[in-house]
Amino acid sequence: MAFDFGALLEKMKMLLASDHASIVSINLFVALICACIVIGHLLEENRWMNESITALTIGLCTGVVILQISGGKTPHIFMFSEDLFFIYLLPPIIFNAGFQVKKKQFFRNFMTIILFGALGNLISFITISLGAIGIFRKMNIGKLEIGDYLAIGAIFSTTDSVCTLQVLNQDEMPLLYSLVFGEGVVNDATSVVLFNAVQNFDLSHINTTIALQLVGNILYLFISSTFLGFIAGLFSAYVIKKLYFGRHSTDREVAIMILMAYLSYMVAELFSLSAILTVFFCGIVMSHYTWHNVSENSRVTTKHTFATLSFIAEIFIFLYVGMDTLDMEKWKFVSDSPGISVKVSSILLVLVLVGRAAFVFPLSFLSNLTKKSPDEKIDFKQQFTIWWAGLMRGAVSMALAYNQFTKGGHTQLRGNAIMITSTITVVLFSTVVRDLNFLLTFDNLEKE
Amino acid sequence: MAFDFGALLEKMKMLLASDHASIVSINLFVALICACIVIGHLLEENRWMNESITALTIGLCTGVVILQISGGKTPHIFMFSEDLFFIYLLPPIIFNAGFQVKKKQFFRNFMTIILFGALGNLISFITISLGAIGIFRKMNIGKLEIGDYLAIGAIFSTTDSVCTLQVLNQDEMPLLYSLVFGEGVVNDATSVVLFNAVQNFDLSHINTTIALQLVGNILYLFISSTFLGFIAGLFSAYVIKKLYFGRHSTDREVAIMILMAYLSYMVAELFSLSAILTVFFCGIVMSHYTWHNVSENSRVTTKHTFATLSFIAEIFIFLYVGMDTLDMEKWKFVSDSPGISVKVSSILLVLVLVGRAAFVFPLSFLSNLTKKSPDEKIDFKQQFTIWWAGLMRGAVSMALAYNQFTKGGHTQLRGNAIMITSTITVVLFSTVVRDLNFLLTFDNLEKE
Repeated sequence: MAFDFGALLEKMKMLLASDHASIVSINLFVALICACIVIGHLLEENRWMNESITALTIGLCTGVVILQISGGKTPHIFMFSEDLFFIYLLPPIIFNAGFQVKKKQFFRNFMTIILFGALGNLISFITISLGAIGIFRKMNIGKLEIGDYLAIGAIFSTTDSVCTLQVLNQDEMPLLYSLVFGEGVVNDATSVVLFNAVQNFDLSHINTTIALQLVGNILYLFISSTFLGFIAGLFSAYVIKKLYFGRHSTDREVAIMILMAYLSYMVAELFSLSAILTVFFCGIVMSHYTWHNVSENSRVTTKHTFATLSFIAEIFIFLYVGMDTLDMEKWKFVSDSPGISVKVSSILLVLVLVGRAAFVFPLSFLSNLTKKSPDEKIDFKQQFTIWWAGLMRGAVSMALAYNQFTKGGHTQLRGNAIMITSTITVVLFSTVVRDLNFLLTFDNLEKE
Repeated sequence: MAFDFGALLEKMKMLLASDHASIVSINLFVALICACIVIGHLLEENRWMNESITALTIGLCTGVVILQISGGKTPHIFMFSEDLFFIYLLPPIIFNAGFQVKKKQFFRNFMTIILFGALGNLISFITISLGAIGIFRKMNIGKLEIGDYLAIGAIFSTTDSVCTLQVLNQDEMPLLYSLVFGEGVVNDATSVVLFNAVQNFDLSHINTTIALQLVGNILYLFISSTFLGFIAGLFSAYVIKKLYFGRHSTDREVAIMILMAYLSYMVAELFSLSAILTVFFCGIVMSHYTWHNVSENSRVTTKHTFATLSFIAEIFIFLYVGMDTLDMEKWKFVSDSPGISVKVSSILLVLVLVGRAAFVFPLSFLSNLTKKSPDEKIDFKQQFTIWWAGLMRGAVSMALAYNQFTKGGHTQLRGNAIMITSTITVVLFSTVVRDLNFLLTFDNLEKE
């Protein structure tokens, strides 16, 4: 492979260059994360709050304070960086999800999960894209290309698996948890694949060949990413069993597990596969094989280390989203016509709900046809919960939206600015509203 | 405090900006670290090798391969970044050292350690500076200022506490370990303080007032840094005990411990204190108080997590130093006159040995005068080991040398280039030679 070393090295230099300024921001973020943990703990008993809402709120407040200090200028510390997200924050979250998932439930519902995550996501993508084309074209929101509409479909088809983990309880509702969460992960992968396809394919001349290529591409990515995850997990199990690190040191075992997991993600990124799928399956295999080959101390350590890293990354993301909300540049365009922005956000929310409804109920019906025992069937209440639980849009949507609608973090076009602000609105609104209502839903479910 | 937000944000943006190139380098580094761990494990039985030499060797080999691929150009991926080192790699290493140190031994020898680390370092600093002024001025190595000579004194007075940890065994030789390691930590702090003083004070008009100011400054830094570390440790213990996180989640306890430790380091950096001292004492207090307030699972997890993070950071540093060695730019100047470079390196090595001898033996004598029991006295063989064990110069020396003698990673002046290459030579030579001989020394010690 011919790497572009010049570019690589320039990047690395930039990445490593930092000074007093970065010390200030690290201090700020670490202190805020501590505050979120403490406050989240104190509010544990209060079921109307959770860590994600706390972090969002604290992020917003900090944003206001910094904006005051800096005199109302646009502090670009608030810029959401896809790379920070995809290289450092997402891997521990998804890996931990795979590592802690109840594998029995997950594999029992495997076909349903794939059905929801892949086919369902496609249905939702088509629904939202068509809806956006139909409605937004008639509105005065600046020029958007066909690629932009399809991107909107992909952006709003990802559910937020991170939040789902915080709201659903694996032990109390194993079936729902594995369905909603499994769908979320597969769903993320499908959306990222669709999004890349939309960006790379020539969409002005869609025909059967290109459509087939697209489908083939998606299948290839699914299979190769999953395969890579399995291989990485099995390889780590083999190395640890064969070399028997525990004889000399627990730390080597823990280090190898952390590094191999991260390596599986980065290798998938390197080959432009779906790194989310890879690291998720790597997590599953590692918890099933590798984890049983290490010493008792390593087992306790890895279990809690992975959970802690994922926990910190989640809080960081919500803080970031909260602070980013106040970046003024993109609200400038919107402030001229606040009505349109509210309209666009509402339309998107409705499209999201319609898009989800368009696959959850039909596919649940299909899935129920294949099950014999009534326990395994998804009853209407559960279908409703799946539909509702997947409403939340999160960090993946944000990252994709920034990727599509900004150039180097700046938003120059009116249409793009409106899409970015609408994405933020949908993410914030769906997170807060769903969290609150979801708890109510569960109260009802539990009481029965 | 009036932060420069514009600069801060620009930095943050640069820091977060990355692309495909950084994915390649992350892949490379993670894979190499895995390789170092596996090879280091396989060579465990071989006492002539250890993880640091393995990492140095692998780093060198990789450097050669990349140099071949990139066609002999200067790949600046090899540039040693002080910030990467001081912000991400050093904190876990020093914190873990404090966390795992045998506190009883450490505090019993506290006065001796401070004597060696502070006064001894000063003696070594003066010896090396005077020697450098006396010898290098007469040689043809380009223009060096008085500040440069003093910087050389500070650079070569730090011993490498990281390597010491790998070679000495805490359980077999508790007295020696606590002396050599404790000296190393205090020593690092003194050198960094001296180095900053040399850079900031006007050295052309040294008089008694400025000298007193300097001493006062050093004392202030020592006391305030240590105090901050204690406070941070005690505060974490209080928060965890008071809030009783374990009731709800182990992960919160672990997260709070990690974040508070890192925060203590970063706050010290923010106020330009000696962050090394702060995080070291924070580690001691945390292992003494906080650690006993958390749940059993958290105890196992934190102990091994800190050790693992420190382990990975150490390997990363040695890989980096190994790869950095091949950066061609600085060898360009030296290749015209290889004789001078060898001479300079040899002279520096001799100065380092003389500088250490000038304080280890007199101060041991002083320390012995205050001890009554013969067990507590440092006999000649132990003095010799302390002298020899502190020979190694490591990553702190490298970082300070790059700080003093390069501008933005580039070496333009002949004198500066020679100093950089000599520092690398001394670090590599002392690491390899000492490691090998040290094992022999220990064989002898153990046999008696």
